[in-house]
Amino acid sequence: MTMQVFGHKSPDTDSTGSPIIWAWYLNEVKGIAAEPKLLGEPNTEATFMLERWNLDKPEIISDVADGQPCVVVDTNNPAELPANINGADVQAIIDHHKLVGGLETKGPIDITIRPVACTATIMYDLIGGDVAKMPDAVKCAMLTCILSDTLEFRSPTTTDHDRKVAEGLAAELGISIPDYAAEMFAAKSDVSAFSDAELLRMDSKEYEVDGTKFRVSVLETTSPATVLDRKAALAEAMTTVASEDGVDQVLLFVVDILNEESTLLVPNDLVKAVAKKSFDADAGGDTVVLPGVVSRKKQIIPNLKV
Amino acid sequence: MTMQVFGHKSPDTDSTGSPIIWAWYLNEVKGIAAEPKLLGEPNTEATFMLERWNLDKPEIISDVADGQPCVVVDTNNPAELPANINGADVQAIIDHHKLVGGLETKGPIDITIRPVACTATIMYDLIGGDVAKMPDAVKCAMLTCILSDTLEFRSPTTTDHDRKVAEGLAAELGISIPDYAAEMFAAKSDVSAFSDAELLRMDSKEYEVDGTKFRVSVLETTSPATVLDRKAALAEAMTTVASEDGVDQVLLFVVDILNEESTLLVPNDLVKAVAKKSFDADAGGDTVVLPGVVSRKKQIIPNLKV
Repeated sequence: MTMQVFGHKSPDTDSTGSPIIWAWYLNEVKGIAAEPKLLGEPNTEATFMLERWNLDKPEIISDVADGQPCVVVDTNNPAELPANINGADVQAIIDHHKLVGGLETKGPIDITIRPVACTATIMYDLIGGDVAKMPDAVKCAMLTCILSDTLEFRSPTTTDHDRKVAEGLAAELGISIPDYAAEMFAAKSDVSAFSDAELLRMDSKEYEVDGTKFRVSVLETTSPATVLDRKAALAEAMTTVASEDGVDQVLLFVVDILNEESTLLVPNDLVKAVAKKSFDADAGGDTVVLPGVVSRKKQIIPNLKV
Repeated sequence: MTMQVFGHKSPDTDSTGSPIIWAWYLNEVKGIAAEPKLLGEPNTEATFMLERWNLDKPEIISDVADGQPCVVVDTNNPAELPANINGADVQAIIDHHKLVGGLETKGPIDITIRPVACTATIMYDLIGGDVAKMPDAVKCAMLTCILSDTLEFRSPTTTDHDRKVAEGLAAELGISIPDYAAEMFAAKSDVSAFSDAELLRMDSKEYEVDGTKFRVSVLETTSPATVLDRKAALAEAMTTVASEDGVDQVLLFVVDILNEESTLLVPNDLVKAVAKKSFDADAGGDTVVLPGVVSRKKQIIPNLKV
């Protein structure tokens, strides 16, 4: 059976690009028949990447069959994977998130988790000298993943190694990082086609604090006003999304990439208290600005209190 | 705080040697103060390795403090680790077992799991060119770990890569693998100092099949008769050990390293049924021979049925 390579259920750039990179490596270097897959519609930045470099959009799958050989990238969380993931034959995991402890494997497999900003950075290391054989379009995907996950090196998750790999690729490809990142972020910021509920679920992870279940959503944008213009409708949609998804509250952080700050929507007293306890921020109105906060992994989740 | 490097609670050669190898690497190559630790008394083969190459016996610790930085090697199973492991600051995991899914980490850390026979083989790859700086005694520990976990390449867990690394080290160190492995296995086979209960717990993993809890113990030896002479007393001790350890049955597989077969002790009808269903073996008396069975990971655990 052809190996399937996929990331998580809300495909951002890294979860769309990394399967393409790794499937290329398995096919062309390791001689293992492999196909990249998606577990949902890619976001606008990921779609931009596919179109910009003429990469085929991977097929979207809804589940995996029993015994299906697969490689899981950019997550190790069964909640973010197909329902039947523990029935599949997971042969490798490549990830840069904390170990959440829900995934079991039938035997010893290849697992590589590294505390870097991006899955593609780990793949660069694992592929080693064979990176030289990689087509330019796949190298461009690698560069895009790193610039996306690091917010062009602004995110505190960025390591020197992520930066070095990205700068090396850009130099080789003749791409100007500032110009290209601006193109990427403009694509990511074009959210006009999405409904309020879709925006709330686009880049979202569930997280529980002292018995309160949150959907922690972030929207990274160079145009926060475009999103904040919709704040009343978004606040209303939060109630429906929370109820449909079985959580107590949706938190939406609108991340202003260029100014390196977030605006948290404050639809009620619960979120007002969260803002105060987590970030010592006093929300006077229906939003509150959190200077310097751009990373859910490093700055939002670790500080979340109710 | 000094980094602690440790393996599992029943220190065999790999769980004794790998912490020594990795602590050397952290101290001497990465400039990180580190100490190897043990979570129990090392077995006779591991003790032989320490004495043969004048390596300091690591300190035995009973638990880890809150926030203690540590590297976990040769396991990812919280049941085989200190009680407070989820309170410690686990910074890396290097292992060659299946992911069991109980360990959580506070943030993204370095995790390297590979389907090879031995943790030391993975360390050889991770250390890379810096292996050249390794003192001979540490290289000898690395070789000993690989020969131990592969049973001198007889175990079906052995990969070409384990063999290649071990043969390379042996050639460089001027060690004859057959002669040295014979020394190691003789040391491992000298179990005269251990009580019956100690023998049952020496190299043992708990495993549940359809609600029946087993302690699956193996004794690898070049002198199976020495152990089998004690079979009546061992069978009696099984009842006490099972009750003290909260399992339904202890299974003892005496692995004859040189003849590549196991003898399973059959103290009762439950184990007789296990032998039949798992290995299609008819136990006429109080033992049954299982030809070719030498690996708990590859041959015993995956076949176990009740």
